Amino acid sequence: MKPINVIKVGGGVVEDDAYLSLLLSSFAALPGAKVLVHGGGRSATRMAERLGIETHMVDGRRITDAAMLDVVTMVYGGLVNKHVVAALQGRGLNAVGLTGADMDLIRSHRRPAGAVDYGWVGDIDRVDAAVLQRLIDAGCVPVVAPLTHDGQGHMLNTNADSIAGEVACALASAYDVTLTFCFEKRGVLRDAADDTSVIPRIDEPSFRRLVQEGVIAGGMIPKLENSFAAVRRGVRQVVITRADHLDGQGGTVIA
Amino acid sequence: MKPINVIKVGGGVVEDDAYLSLLLSSFAALPGAKVLVHGGGRSATRMAERLGIETHMVDGRRITDAAMLDVVTMVYGGLVNKHVVAALQGRGLNAVGLTGADMDLIRSHRRPAGAVDYGWVGDIDRVDAAVLQRLIDAGCVPVVAPLTHDGQGHMLNTNADSIAGEVACALASAYDVTLTFCFEKRGVLRDAADDTSVIPRIDEPSFRRLVQEGVIAGGMIPKLENSFAAVRRGVRQVVITRADHLDGQGGTVIA
Repeated sequence: MKPINVIKVGGGVVEDDAYLSLLLSSFAALPGAKVLVHGGGRSATRMAERLGIETHMVDGRRITDAAMLDVVTMVYGGLVNKHVVAALQGRGLNAVGLTGADMDLIRSHRRPAGAVDYGWVGDIDRVDAAVLQRLIDAGCVPVVAPLTHDGQGHMLNTNADSIAGEVACALASAYDVTLTFCFEKRGVLRDAADDTSVIPRIDEPSFRRLVQEGVIAGGMIPKLENSFAAVRRGVRQVVITRADHLDGQGGTVIA
Repeated sequence: MKPINVIKVGGGVVEDDAYLSLLLSSFAALPGAKVLVHGGGRSATRMAERLGIETHMVDGRRITDAAMLDVVTMVYGGLVNKHVVAALQGRGLNAVGLTGADMDLIRSHRRPAGAVDYGWVGDIDRVDAAVLQRLIDAGCVPVVAPLTHDGQGHMLNTNADSIAGEVACALASAYDVTLTFCFEKRGVLRDAADDTSVIPRIDEPSFRRLVQEGVIAGGMIPKLENSFAAVRRGVRQVVITRADHLDGQGGTVIA
């Protein structure tokens, strides 16, 4: 199978012009088929604040009422997505910006209200890999915003890590997929204060050991759990690395 | 050649929920290939105001500095475009939202500063009709926002009427094109106060006569001049009508 890179970049990367420029060079240099999935949460929070709309987060997830849905739709689908698309076009990549609603790429359902009502937040039902494959075969580079739709006319705010994971898994039937999460750090560090302490490879037994030792903690635990889940669902490897090392050199490989 | 409908809807239509719903029903019912081009100027002005950014218009065109470019990029490319795309998906149409940057669909150049510096405003150089044709052949319905790019990494604010006209002309080599401008009125009226006074057909000699008589005046003059230009460039006909009459029944035909 042909290789493909699915690269997830967080808001911190796409919102810093210097860092974004690094990422774009690094991304443009990647050979072969590729897909970029971006976040944008910090921009959304800042825009909401400018509009006098309060941001409420629960467990790192944004409560999305109708006003906040408008904010994330315009910030993720418009401001951030088109900024990245135009920048990639300027570097000779034929980028195409997509939300889950475009070409019915990602269908989701509104998360049922439990102890918390997250509002217009979507949990993914399916990714149409054939849509991406057609675009890639036509020479395009899909740039996916963290928005999906319910097929009933509503956009839904959707976690960018989840979108990257589901896109990677959906592509695994047709491609040899590497899923890369792009951070400010070079990889998973043994010592948070030491950038040279990158752990080069983590498998499930070593993951459990590192959690017990307290080396891996907090938000990194669900990220790695999701990475192992992606590998079990057919993704060849998940890489955690920095924007200027998208080729995976020097990062942490989860496999 | 196969027929295609290129429908332009102004901000006044897409920003009024009841009117938008009418338009979507009418648009969904149109048989065959179709493209929707939308505006969104009023939403952009309102959003700019909420953000404390002043709107300056010269001859009906928006002066677009960097802050205003961010506003139109997020409002046209995000808020309005994705709202329409999700709504069409909810009606069973496989819509795909595009700006000129996506798939390099519409390349333009920044308008040179003359007596007025319009800022980040684009004048269209070319529309890649093959991109639209591929999407349409794949069963998609393109929904185009009034934004283009310069190929150097910059988005450019671009008049939606101009985009609709250039898209229609570009498609004319492969399709039998009807370009429809969708207004609040049923067509070009002989008496502005009388909605039943629609002039059913205007050709160039009758246009000149109607201008002399003062029946056609103001902003309608350049609109009709552009319509005749489109017809000279291969568009079969231009129709001016209301959102609930997209089939052209009862509107004004320019041919």
